[in-house]
Amino acid sequence: MKTQHQIPERSYKASGFIGKYQKLVTDTVIPWQEQILWDKAPDTEKSHAIANFINAGKALRGEDPGDGFYGMVFQDSDVAKWIESASFSLVNSPDKALEEELDKVIGIIAEAQDKDGYLNTYFTVKDRDRRWTNLHEAHELYVAGHFIEAACAHFEATGKRTLLDVMIRNVEHIRDHFIVQGNPGVPGHPEIELALMKLYRLTGDKNALELCSHFINERGQDPELFIREADNRTWSVWNSNPRDEGDREYRQCDKPLRGLEKAVGHAVRAVYLYAGMADLASETEDEELMDSCRRVWKNIVQSKMYVTGGIGSTVLGEAFTVDYDLPPDTAYAETCASVGLIFFASRMLENEISGEYADVMERAFYNTVLAGMALDGKRFFYVNPLEVDPGISGVAPTHKHDLPVRPKWYQCACCPPNVARLIESFGKYAYGENEDTAYCHMVAAGKVIFANGMELTCETEYPHEMNVSYSVKGKGRLAVHVPGWSKKYEISRDGNVLNAELQNGYIYLDINGETEIALKLDDVPAFIYPSSRIPRIAGMVALRRGPLVYCFEGTDNGSVKALKIDRDSKPEISSYSEELDVDMISVKAFREDESEELYPDTPPALTPCEATAIPYYTWGNRGETEMRVWMR
Amino acid sequence: MKTQHQIPERSYKASGFIGKYQKLVTDTVIPWQEQILWDKAPDTEKSHAIANFINAGKALRGEDPGDGFYGMVFQDSDVAKWIESASFSLVNSPDKALEEELDKVIGIIAEAQDKDGYLNTYFTVKDRDRRWTNLHEAHELYVAGHFIEAACAHFEATGKRTLLDVMIRNVEHIRDHFIVQGNPGVPGHPEIELALMKLYRLTGDKNALELCSHFINERGQDPELFIREADNRTWSVWNSNPRDEGDREYRQCDKPLRGLEKAVGHAVRAVYLYAGMADLASETEDEELMDSCRRVWKNIVQSKMYVTGGIGSTVLGEAFTVDYDLPPDTAYAETCASVGLIFFASRMLENEISGEYADVMERAFYNTVLAGMALDGKRFFYVNPLEVDPGISGVAPTHKHDLPVRPKWYQCACCPPNVARLIESFGKYAYGENEDTAYCHMVAAGKVIFANGMELTCETEYPHEMNVSYSVKGKGRLAVHVPGWSKKYEISRDGNVLNAELQNGYIYLDINGETEIALKLDDVPAFIYPSSRIPRIAGMVALRRGPLVYCFEGTDNGSVKALKIDRDSKPEISSYSEELDVDMISVKAFREDESEELYPDTPPALTPCEATAIPYYTWGNRGETEMRVWMR
Repeated sequence: MKTQHQIPERSYKASGFIGKYQKLVTDTVIPWQEQILWDKAPDTEKSHAIANFINAGKALRGEDPGDGFYGMVFQDSDVAKWIESASFSLVNSPDKALEEELDKVIGIIAEAQDKDGYLNTYFTVKDRDRRWTNLHEAHELYVAGHFIEAACAHFEATGKRTLLDVMIRNVEHIRDHFIVQGNPGVPGHPEIELALMKLYRLTGDKNALELCSHFINERGQDPELFIREADNRTWSVWNSNPRDEGDREYRQCDKPLRGLEKAVGHAVRAVYLYAGMADLASETEDEELMDSCRRVWKNIVQSKMYVTGGIGSTVLGEAFTVDYDLPPDTAYAETCASVGLIFFASRMLENEISGEYADVMERAFYNTVLAGMALDGKRFFYVNPLEVDPGISGVAPTHKHDLPVRPKWYQCACCPPNVARLIESFGKYAYGENEDTAYCHMVAAGKVIFANGMELTCETEYPHEMNVSYSVKGKGRLAVHVPGWSKKYEISRDGNVLNAELQNGYIYLDINGETEIALKLDDVPAFIYPSSRIPRIAGMVALRRGPLVYCFEGTDNGSVKALKIDRDSKPEISSYSEELDVDMISVKAFREDESEELYPDTPPALTPCEATAIPYYTWGNRGETEMRVWMR
Repeated sequence: MKTQHQIPERSYKASGFIGKYQKLVTDTVIPWQEQILWDKAPDTEKSHAIANFINAGKALRGEDPGDGFYGMVFQDSDVAKWIESASFSLVNSPDKALEEELDKVIGIIAEAQDKDGYLNTYFTVKDRDRRWTNLHEAHELYVAGHFIEAACAHFEATGKRTLLDVMIRNVEHIRDHFIVQGNPGVPGHPEIELALMKLYRLTGDKNALELCSHFINERGQDPELFIREADNRTWSVWNSNPRDEGDREYRQCDKPLRGLEKAVGHAVRAVYLYAGMADLASETEDEELMDSCRRVWKNIVQSKMYVTGGIGSTVLGEAFTVDYDLPPDTAYAETCASVGLIFFASRMLENEISGEYADVMERAFYNTVLAGMALDGKRFFYVNPLEVDPGISGVAPTHKHDLPVRPKWYQCACCPPNVARLIESFGKYAYGENEDTAYCHMVAAGKVIFANGMELTCETEYPHEMNVSYSVKGKGRLAVHVPGWSKKYEISRDGNVLNAELQNGYIYLDINGETEIALKLDDVPAFIYPSSRIPRIAGMVALRRGPLVYCFEGTDNGSVKALKIDRDSKPEISSYSEELDVDMISVKAFREDESEELYPDTPPALTPCEATAIPYYTWGNRGETEMRVWMR
């Protein structure tokens, strides 16, 4: 293992599918969020996020802080995530006006930093004496984490140090509070851990490494930490009670992190934490910590992940639950959790090259993450069910969270900017490298210049077509991942089919000069089956083509629950939907007659028919209608 | 329609299956509950229910009320339900000691009645000034209702008027408060309505009829009633907020009762209320009110009832939810709600003879109600899921309420005494009569003497065998219901097969002298199918034999979710289980190989096998194991 901060970043200029999505985020999501942060978006809930920073600056200068603080306790993080996305966007599509806007916002933030390095508008505006007294609820370290990530992205994009220096000072302040002064505490919402590792790798700042290590080592050592903290204060943000059943698991504080066996608690917190753990384990060659990461990884992918890469199946605590409890209709499967799962997977992949990690990244990205955003980039799902029934979904008490259509924007705006920053930085996950090898983890059209100088141009219509061509120049070793779903594939080099064997899901090629590599993946739509250990879907069947899980909508099929798939038939690409810009798959099925009677004693008549499926990520773009991934 | 209070009660002496269950309740449940009420039961949560009455009596006499009040705000109702069950039991099995015990407890209750007729230990012991100020939460009218029912049962069983007179005075007091003094208010938890109608029909007490009519007419007229009430007080039992979303629906106060379209809210409250409405509608020939009852009835049986007769599918509010939202695994389906559904059905049946009502009574009784009690009468289910997976059921956050084995007794002891009183009074539901006809609504072995003098002896092993013989003596018309599930049947009289046509599910026979009637119902196990409108079970299949819905347990089958039923096969009675004292059904099936992988891309291998089912009411009697009613 190695420290990576010496390695300059490779560059990736997207084209094809990813390019199209980056353009959507650059042209639509980032400007829209900018408007929201400035409270200029029409018909949208007030954000006040930048106003909070302006008012915090005033408060620090002893001026009247105007209309004070407004919003969630972690409202600041919306600004951070926007800066991060916008910075990534600058790399992909340089834009002078956006760069200036970033400078302006960052200037406002710098003004809101306290003399001692503290940065958080909730406390700076409302009550400076309450700083660091409510880690259980108040998200100070979470917000700091997002600003550290934003600072790294902004520096990488522009070379400007303003925000980076702000955050280096902020990290120093935090280290002083928790390590030098020895105040007990760990983040109530993990996030800062992976951010600190980014900062360390980018700048070599030892404070960051030390602080990350401190938070990970301390976490769970004192299971009563937050109870003690609550006993020492008279105020609360949400009246969360650290004595509540499940609170410790909810925030991953129930045991020291080196002893984890299962993924538990709030899913976003969990995978952010696990990503930070994997980073630290890699950096410090901590095999014990890495083993803990491996165990929770296995637990997630072997028993707690939806076929769409969604995780955290229950709305109660937005959390992981017990193994194999994966209901399609009451799913929570938060978009942010799948973003975090990709973070976790990418860190595992840095530690050990195995196609499984890349496959999970792909599964989560092409299904849950993309489904999180409408095709026009204007509406977002936080919750990603695998089954929707109008009249029940979004209405029944147990299904209130499972909305059948994407809402515009939320007061708690966590998911949309998370999707935005992931899409804009897709190249960081699709490609990788270490000292001796350049990696193609996920298929992503575009041009890559690796740090070792190797240049690669990937042309493909993936994920809508399964032929991928790589034009490679340079010298070194290249490893191309063959997605796990593609049991059949053909790889050729300069026109000659190779008989290369997969090593942990990768084909290794020595590059010396210019070469053309062609990868043909399996294009045939296929069924997927669930393990019979999952009670809710045992015996059912789903459809996929390439990395895309498909679903059946009422718009194309009428009543979807009345359909039974003919498993002896072969699903086929049937038509192209202009509206969704995707290929549709049709498969033979039987339609059950509807019965007026609730429990008839005669079997329903079955009529042969065709059923039509669309990629899951495009569901809910044509109004409220039934939807199912898993079919009988 | 008619007033029925002139008609003396018919008598029913059970034998066979019902007789066995009545004996179980008499020998086991009633003595056990008596011990609990007196706090003499070992290893059981303190009840304090009788102590509350003793202490209330002391408080009224100006003595020190000892250790005061303990328990739920409606703790008194446990005593009432026990008195009611015990009184019914006295009719079935005369028992001097039990009769004396009843006299003793009733004496204690009488001492706890205030001078003005008020009776409720929570307020009498804790704070007399708070009487009638929290109808929203405090269950005073609910408790009164249960005591009225107990008083009627005790008078019918013994001819003793002590408790009846107490409750007549109590009703006068309540009428005075709400009608004479004009204090606004309706029951927060309906129950008293049907009880008042019982009292009126038994005694002709006009106060009871007037009060019932008042509560039903007032309900929902002022949707802000409970908000106003809450604004006028500074205390609360549970901090329920009448402004909470859904609170009005929860307690059926959202609209006047004559305009009901759908069954809503807390299921037990709903069906108790609807039963009272149907009683009043019948008594006052109120067609508008009766139409309202018909609409909610239809809504329940056409879209909100489990195949087991369970209702109230969601744990959130223990409530009805939207149409067709009938999840088997997260079902609430409270035992009490099915008891209440039987009450409602029996009242509908008094208004209009239709086999549908009798069929629902049977469905609810032989499945959910009986499943509510262990075969040894010592443990009870409140919640009756149709699917249980150890490791998920009772454990996952959304499945905490779905226990895989029956617990002993609850602090909130509503269901066990409800099962007990229903079983002990089964004859009231199985048989009925009006001016011109005696009815056999449900098959029930035993001897009936109708009010018109007709005597009927029913011999049968039903529900474990489908031949029923009736020996009838007397003069008049007899109507025998043929259960709706028995599409094939044969009825013969004195050895001659009759070609009688069903009229709304009943065969009418003129009796004059002695006659032997034999009814042969369809004995063949059969599949039941769900409407494809129920998303969770569309396309699945269940098994029944006679009125008994069957289920598959892990004990007999290993992994149940790995099984797929062969629908082309014929389910057959395969063996007798001595442990459960039931016939088991076997059916051809396929067993799916278990996959280590969560989402394999090859179909699981299917191995032909036999699957074995047991009656649903006997599930969970052999330890924690998987269980399913609906199968692929």
